[in-house]
Amino acid sequence: MKLFHTLSLSVLASTLLLAASPLLEKAKNTGLIAIPTDDKALLKLIDPNGTITDKKVDLGKKLYFEPRLSKSGIISCNTCHNLGLGGVDGVAAAVGHKWTANPHHLNSPTVYNAVFFKSQFWDGRSPHLEDQAQGPMQATPEMAAPKSLVVERINSIPAYVEAFKDAYGKDVKVDFETITATIGIFERTLVTPSRFDDYLHGKEDALTKQEKEGLKMFIDKGCTSCHTGIALGGTMQPFELAGKYKFASVGDFKGNAQGMVKTPTLRNITETAPYFHNGAIWNLADAVKEMGSTQLGIKISDEDAGKIVTFFGALEGRKPEITYPQLPASTDKTPKPDFN
Amino acid sequence: MKLFHTLSLSVLASTLLLAASPLLEKAKNTGLIAIPTDDKALLKLIDPNGTITDKKVDLGKKLYFEPRLSKSGIISCNTCHNLGLGGVDGVAAAVGHKWTANPHHLNSPTVYNAVFFKSQFWDGRSPHLEDQAQGPMQATPEMAAPKSLVVERINSIPAYVEAFKDAYGKDVKVDFETITATIGIFERTLVTPSRFDDYLHGKEDALTKQEKEGLKMFIDKGCTSCHTGIALGGTMQPFELAGKYKFASVGDFKGNAQGMVKTPTLRNITETAPYFHNGAIWNLADAVKEMGSTQLGIKISDEDAGKIVTFFGALEGRKPEITYPQLPASTDKTPKPDFN
Repeated sequence: MKLFHTLSLSVLASTLLLAASPLLEKAKNTGLIAIPTDDKALLKLIDPNGTITDKKVDLGKKLYFEPRLSKSGIISCNTCHNLGLGGVDGVAAAVGHKWTANPHHLNSPTVYNAVFFKSQFWDGRSPHLEDQAQGPMQATPEMAAPKSLVVERINSIPAYVEAFKDAYGKDVKVDFETITATIGIFERTLVTPSRFDDYLHGKEDALTKQEKEGLKMFIDKGCTSCHTGIALGGTMQPFELAGKYKFASVGDFKGNAQGMVKTPTLRNITETAPYFHNGAIWNLADAVKEMGSTQLGIKISDEDAGKIVTFFGALEGRKPEITYPQLPASTDKTPKPDFN
Repeated sequence: MKLFHTLSLSVLASTLLLAASPLLEKAKNTGLIAIPTDDKALLKLIDPNGTITDKKVDLGKKLYFEPRLSKSGIISCNTCHNLGLGGVDGVAAAVGHKWTANPHHLNSPTVYNAVFFKSQFWDGRSPHLEDQAQGPMQATPEMAAPKSLVVERINSIPAYVEAFKDAYGKDVKVDFETITATIGIFERTLVTPSRFDDYLHGKEDALTKQEKEGLKMFIDKGCTSCHTGIALGGTMQPFELAGKYKFASVGDFKGNAQGMVKTPTLRNITETAPYFHNGAIWNLADAVKEMGSTQLGIKISDEDAGKIVTFFGALEGRKPEITYPQLPASTDKTPKPDFN
C-alpha cells in the first residue's frame, strides 16, 4: 500500500539492540501497543476483511471531502473531522446544517486512528467506520442529507459512477451503503505513527528524558487502565467512576445504556482540544487533572499533570500526506443545494 | 517555481510547426491569450512585483485552508472557494457565518486564475488578490472575523509566528495586512492551463473538431467582446447592454457606480455552476443564451449554445496539485470559536 509511506521502517533495526529499558518493558506490560512498522502487519490490523484497495481509498478520499453529500452542499466529513486539524473541528460541540450545534453538545472525535477504536461514537453504538459514516451524513444537525439525496447526488455525476465501477466492478450498485463504506475504507488508512511508536519498537532515544518521565507518571497514576492498547483509548468505560465530572451539566449525554462512555484516543491529543464528550475543557493539563478526580479518585498536581502532558507531545503522529482531491462537476440532474 | 509543474512545456515545440490555421489566427487576433508555458514569463504575469517565494506560498496555503481565520473557527477561504470544486462552492449565493446567505445574493467567484482579473469582486472594487482577501474574512455574513481577532488568533500560535518570520524575516509584524497578503500570494499561483492554451500555443490537435467549431461560434457570435484576454473575462463591463437579465430581481446587486459588472472568467466554467453574479442560472447553455440576449442583443439557438458549451470543455484546466496542509494547534492564548 503506497498509503503508509509515513511509517518509519527504519526503527525496526533498533529492536535488535540491547535489552529494553525497565520503562519500556513497563509500558509494554501495561498494555500499550505500537502501530506496526510492517505494512503487512498494519494492513491486517486496519483491514481485517481485506476491503482496502488503492482505488477505493482514492474514491473514499474524494467522498470524505465532498460537500455535496450534505443537504446544503457545503458541509463535508472534513468540515468536522478536519484532516489538517488533528482530525477534528476544534470547537466544543459540532456545528452543522443551519448552524445547529449538536443537540447533546457532543464534541467531534478525531478520525485519525479511529480505525483502532473498538467501537465508534461517544456511546459506542457503531461497530466500525463504514457504519459510523452513515450517521453524521443523515443527522439533521450535521449534514442533514437523507439517504435518497446522497444516492441521487452521487449517481447524477457520471465521473463518480465510473469511479465506483472502477473500484468495485461494473455491476456495483452505487447505494448509500456502498458510498458510506467507501468513506470508511479511506478512513481506515488514517493512522499516524508517532515517536512513541518508535520508542515502543525499541528506539529508546525517540522520547526525551522529560517525555519518559511523563510516560512513567502516566503509567504510575493509572491512566493506562483506560488509555491503553494501540489507540491509547477507544474502548467503552464507565464514566465518573470515582467522582463527578466538573462539567456534567453541559449537554445531556450520559453515555450508553450502561452509562459507559468511549475513551478518546490520546494519539494527537495535543492537537484536538477542546476535550471530553462535551468539549468543556480546553486545557490539556486541566483535562488530565479532571480525569484524576472523576476516574481515578486521585488528585493530580499541576506539576504531575504537566509531566503527563509533556509525554503526550510524543503522541503527535506523522500524518498521511493527502493530496486535495479534484471533485467531478455536478450535472443538470444533480439535486440542488438546500439550505432549509 | 516548483508550483507550476502542471504546465505543459512540451507544447512549445509545436509552435515551430507550419503556419497556424485560420481559426487559430482568428482566436489570437480576437484577443484570446494563452497562459505562458514558460515559467519565467508566467511568473512575470502573476507576480509582477516579485513577492512570490515558496515559503510565502506554503504559508499562504495553510492560511487559505485555516478555519480559525473565521469568527466561528469553522469557515475557511476554501469553504466558499473550494479548490476541489473549480474554486467555488457550487451554491447560488455564498453562505457563511450563522448560515447567512450573502445579503446581495452574490455568487462566490472562482479563485482559480483570479490573478488574471483586472480587478476583484463582482463590482471590481478591489485592485488585487492581497486586497480582496481582506474582505470576506471581515464580512459579517461570511467569515465575520474582526481584524483584531484574526491577528490575535494567528499570533497566539507560535508555529504560525515562526512561519511568518521564516517567510518574511524575523522582524515581520504579523498583522492583518501581512496575513491577508500571504493568502493573496498563494492565490496568485492558482492558475490552470488547459487544452485551449495548448491550442493557442500552436498545438492544433489539442482541440477536437467539435471544440473548434464551438470556438469559431464563440468568436463569431461576439462573446470575445467581453470574454477575452488571458482570463477570458476579468474586466468590468456594462451589464444588460442589450436586454434585461432574466433574473435581475434576484438580489439587489446592480454593479458598480457606473452599472458595470465584472465579467467572470470562462476558464473551468463547466465546473463552476451556478452562473451569473446572483447564481440564478444553473445550466451553462442557458447561461450562454442569456448572454446573447442581455449583452449581444442576439438570439443564440440551442444548437449554437451547445456548440459553444462544447468549446468550454477545452477550458477545463490542469489544477495545481495541493497537498492538504497540516495546521498548527491552538494554544491556551488562542481566542475561542464564537458562533454568535
